[in-house]
Amino acid sequence: MNQKLRTDAEDIARSAIEAVNPDEAVKRALADFAPQGRVFLVAVGKAAWQMARAAVRELPRPVDGGVVVTKYGHVLEEIPGVACYEAGHPVPDEGSFRGTNAVLTLTKDLLPTDTVLFLLSGGGSALFEQSLILPEELQSITRQLLACGADIVEMNTVRKRLSGVKGGRFALHCAPARVEAVVLSDILGDPLDMIASGPAAADPSTAEQAKAIAEKYALKLSEAARSCLEVETPKVLDNVRTQIIGSVRELCRAAAERCRVLGYEPILLTDRLDCEAREAGRFLASILGAHAGEGKKLAFLAGGETVVHLTGPGLGGRNQELALAAAPGLAGLSTDGPTDAAGGYADGDTLAALRAAGLNVHEVLADNDAYHALKAVNGLVRTGPTGTNVNDVSLALIGGL
Amino acid sequence: MNQKLRTDAEDIARSAIEAVNPDEAVKRALADFAPQGRVFLVAVGKAAWQMARAAVRELPRPVDGGVVVTKYGHVLEEIPGVACYEAGHPVPDEGSFRGTNAVLTLTKDLLPTDTVLFLLSGGGSALFEQSLILPEELQSITRQLLACGADIVEMNTVRKRLSGVKGGRFALHCAPARVEAVVLSDILGDPLDMIASGPAAADPSTAEQAKAIAEKYALKLSEAARSCLEVETPKVLDNVRTQIIGSVRELCRAAAERCRVLGYEPILLTDRLDCEAREAGRFLASILGAHAGEGKKLAFLAGGETVVHLTGPGLGGRNQELALAAAPGLAGLSTDGPTDAAGGYADGDTLAALRAAGLNVHEVLADNDAYHALKAVNGLVRTGPTGTNVNDVSLALIGGL
Repeated sequence: MNQKLRTDAEDIARSAIEAVNPDEAVKRALADFAPQGRVFLVAVGKAAWQMARAAVRELPRPVDGGVVVTKYGHVLEEIPGVACYEAGHPVPDEGSFRGTNAVLTLTKDLLPTDTVLFLLSGGGSALFEQSLILPEELQSITRQLLACGADIVEMNTVRKRLSGVKGGRFALHCAPARVEAVVLSDILGDPLDMIASGPAAADPSTAEQAKAIAEKYALKLSEAARSCLEVETPKVLDNVRTQIIGSVRELCRAAAERCRVLGYEPILLTDRLDCEAREAGRFLASILGAHAGEGKKLAFLAGGETVVHLTGPGLGGRNQELALAAAPGLAGLSTDGPTDAAGGYADGDTLAALRAAGLNVHEVLADNDAYHALKAVNGLVRTGPTGTNVNDVSLALIGGL
Repeated sequence: MNQKLRTDAEDIARSAIEAVNPDEAVKRALADFAPQGRVFLVAVGKAAWQMARAAVRELPRPVDGGVVVTKYGHVLEEIPGVACYEAGHPVPDEGSFRGTNAVLTLTKDLLPTDTVLFLLSGGGSALFEQSLILPEELQSITRQLLACGADIVEMNTVRKRLSGVKGGRFALHCAPARVEAVVLSDILGDPLDMIASGPAAADPSTAEQAKAIAEKYALKLSEAARSCLEVETPKVLDNVRTQIIGSVRELCRAAAERCRVLGYEPILLTDRLDCEAREAGRFLASILGAHAGEGKKLAFLAGGETVVHLTGPGLGGRNQELALAAAPGLAGLSTDGPTDAAGGYADGDTLAALRAAGLNVHEVLADNDAYHALKAVNGLVRTGPTGTNVNDVSLALIGGL
């Protein structure tokens, strides 16, 4: 095993994970946050409590009011000056409506000098909701759309118009106050209008499209719902500034920065990798093989979330499969190594080590048993709890001459 | 469809294919070939006749003797001053031994001022062979190695030692004459000792390894075969100069050069891609998606030979599957397009066009029916006969602002 490359790989992975830790990321996002007037804190989503606590600790003075709406069991202690609500996920419940009402009351009739610090994370679609129609009809429409095979874009186009806060309407509600949005992304590519259904993001979909979808699928709608579809969502929101934190893109950027510090030239391939894990591993190995002879210290980065199709009863996550599948393509290369945070490590010696341990890569992969194979060749990478659900980055290093 | 990107993609593919055409490639390889003494031409492999004809046309004066050994039916007409033999492939036959004898006679007792122009292409392992043991035993050993699951490296380590021409021994036979080898590569990564079993390439494997393999698999060997394994192959060949032509690497280089001419910054990802075609397509789409917003004209190149696992009865080769599988990841991107020579084309509009034609990408791929789907959306790329069996290059273009 190439110990230097492995040490570097783990160093880079650790730095990248630290950078997307919600506490650290919120802190960085607030570095130049210096509003003059009142500040109201609104935090919504699965990470809302953690983000709110980090913000309150970071701000130079107490907020003028605050509401957190998060999942049941996610409020760990009180936050000074902030009311915390717990609510249902993934299906909105009474808690969602109560928490959302508290938010809307807090942010009603604001002044142009006020600022709403809006901390958004995944799960906000269910946790933050004000239905413009009866909750039973909202459920019925969702069921109808699912049953007729509507895709997620079509679903959202309809549902944004049945909500008082989705599709940019929460930001509109806050106007003329400024909205400083800090969004912890959990969707590849960071589509702002999709994360938690975009309460503070201009909506690219139109009322025309919503009506066309209702017609295409012959949705059964009440008069109230039908008139909701007529009302346009905000297309421009000039009171909002948005920072995306904790995204795969940021994870990749942080990894690239650390690569540079360690003397590697980072090459970001993608921040939205979504193919089969083992094939991504083979692709990365082929990239390393092609560049290994150039005598340069290179780091290829691929962020995203690969998938695994189970064909066997073994143990091992997507990142372990990715690393293991790279081993044959790396065999014999003396200066290479790919790794994944909380995953696996393989280099030019891994295939031989597996063989010596009596293991065949293809059989191991057919069993989805990357964990045990990597364990046998000391190829597991353990990061411990990362404190974030941001997805993966794969790192492929060439050590140069 | 983005017509400009498509036109550029086809232009780049055409230029790259032209560059690896054997006639053109041999011509380029001989550009600075100016030997003072006698010149003997030896051409071996599936492309031997075509390479020999191109060389004879290109050389300023007739060769002093020449032999071609190629597959049955591959000698299309006489070449002045060159004796052409046809032989068996993939199993050596009488023709192989006769042709090889003619080569060895031609290149016997050469002078230091002589030059052997050695034109090598795929298939040479069977076509060019002088067995040091009885042909029946050679077949028996090959069968034993196959039956016990020996890998290709192990097979070659043993077989090179049972041959009078493999593993660098042909070049040794030509010494002290110079050998100017021009190798048309058909193996990813261009391992010279593997292409046609490396008649003019120093052999990295050792007699020790060969004996260990015979022991490991308990091979049944005659005394003659056993003593062959004791004899070392050449480890250094200082009378040989080798040029590799027509390789995937050269295909990629030619494509990159044309990209530059058309204003794209080429980024060579790999020249040895070997993963599942559809997953390579998704990986490339994720690379395009990540870089589409940068406002630069970029071209990502991935050379190699992907694989397809058939799950349905449809029509469509690996390059068509690759392009089609990229469509979902490209959907909505306005400035992107990936293509493959003799394959398929997809861009940001392809997914919508498929939908409009009532086609679902995932169902089409499950049927391995990329051909009909791409045909429906005008996404087939037809190059006609390419005159080469060099493998593929995938091209992913970003058109800039």
